[in-house]
Amino acid sequence: MKLVLIRHGQSEWNLANLFTGWTDVDLTDHGAADAKHAGQALKQHGFHFDVAYTSYLKRAIKTLNYVLEETDSLWVPVHKSWKLNERHYGALQGLNKQEVAEKYGAEQVHIWRRSFDTAPPLLEKEDERYPGHEQKYKEIPEDEIPLGESLETTIKRVIPYWEEVIKPSVRAGKSVIIAAHGNSLRGLMKYLEDISDEDIVNVSIPTGVPLVYELDDNLEPVSKYFIDQEE
Amino acid sequence: MKLVLIRHGQSEWNLANLFTGWTDVDLTDHGAADAKHAGQALKQHGFHFDVAYTSYLKRAIKTLNYVLEETDSLWVPVHKSWKLNERHYGALQGLNKQEVAEKYGAEQVHIWRRSFDTAPPLLEKEDERYPGHEQKYKEIPEDEIPLGESLETTIKRVIPYWEEVIKPSVRAGKSVIIAAHGNSLRGLMKYLEDISDEDIVNVSIPTGVPLVYELDDNLEPVSKYFIDQEE
Repeated sequence: MKLVLIRHGQSEWNLANLFTGWTDVDLTDHGAADAKHAGQALKQHGFHFDVAYTSYLKRAIKTLNYVLEETDSLWVPVHKSWKLNERHYGALQGLNKQEVAEKYGAEQVHIWRRSFDTAPPLLEKEDERYPGHEQKYKEIPEDEIPLGESLETTIKRVIPYWEEVIKPSVRAGKSVIIAAHGNSLRGLMKYLEDISDEDIVNVSIPTGVPLVYELDDNLEPVSKYFIDQEE
Repeated sequence: MKLVLIRHGQSEWNLANLFTGWTDVDLTDHGAADAKHAGQALKQHGFHFDVAYTSYLKRAIKTLNYVLEETDSLWVPVHKSWKLNERHYGALQGLNKQEVAEKYGAEQVHIWRRSFDTAPPLLEKEDERYPGHEQKYKEIPEDEIPLGESLETTIKRVIPYWEEVIKPSVRAGKSVIIAAHGNSLRGLMKYLEDISDEDIVNVSIPTGVPLVYELDDNLEPVSKYFIDQEE
């Protein structure tokens, strides 16, 4: 069984060096081109999909749509969930990474970005960035709406979604693709490969490059590789 | 309650004057631009969506994706079904409309295109155009896979999908958009407005222009109008 993960292509705020999190920014033209190339590479390698999963954020959804189009899979069911969203960056969302480093120090920013269990400064519910103000997050019980997440708390919402929703499709033999974000995918990789809390913070996958897992009958990975376009 | 219907923008085979049916041709650049403009117009008029329905054909799916993107609704659930596909044009699919008219006569072509209950020449199951050869139609019971459809038989698959799947969402107060095709939408209009068999063949909606129905509590239309972009 194969499972394909893809991290969205470059977004406008990656380019602007802002903390993004749940901010629903678009792909850049470069990010869109990356996503198309990823789809073309998957097609060259004979991939097609039966079902797809993505987040509520347009940079992942659009990346997925480009990949589905290039692999002649636009017709397949696409399931979207906030549980595959990027880590919520709390009160850092929208701030410039360089300016935050000047204000709080590089060491503190490193901790916010790279520790396993440290949350960023939390949002107030009155903040306009609070997800509870948005129609698309109305379904989340109020006590589950994040005010800011660590990698650890991000993983705690990703894994149940994998277990309850995605895994049954993989187990049924379907060809599955997940288009998501640096930290939600990191959570999935940690779980699949049983990576330690210490090591996972240093693992990441490049944007717009499909990562393929080959899984055995117990859904344990037997190999993984990236798909690149052939020249 | 409001319901929005949109017929896909210009496709490559519209432009080439070929019978299309279930052939999965792409939008032209013009068709894609039409779809984006439709989305912008809907946004200008304050539309957003809670759920969307479309066919298995990429010209409708891509039209929908453009509209969802422009109305900040990319995150909503999208349900795809072959039951919203265009009328299957049988053995005429892929043939040039002008050449077919020269071979069979304009009168016969007019009957195939505009009668209510006349099917086109049927496909053989050995024909490469037979839908049963395609992965995406494997779910259809063999005796329901069309070899060629009249408007009447098209409607017979569209209406149960409306009744069983779409209507409950409308009744629940959700803001619904359906992106589909000339004949599947014609079937829906016939049903909603109780248009006669004789009259429906002369009704059509323009490509890429949203049609809004306002419905009463019994889901009877109380008004309908097209959405155009404001200057």
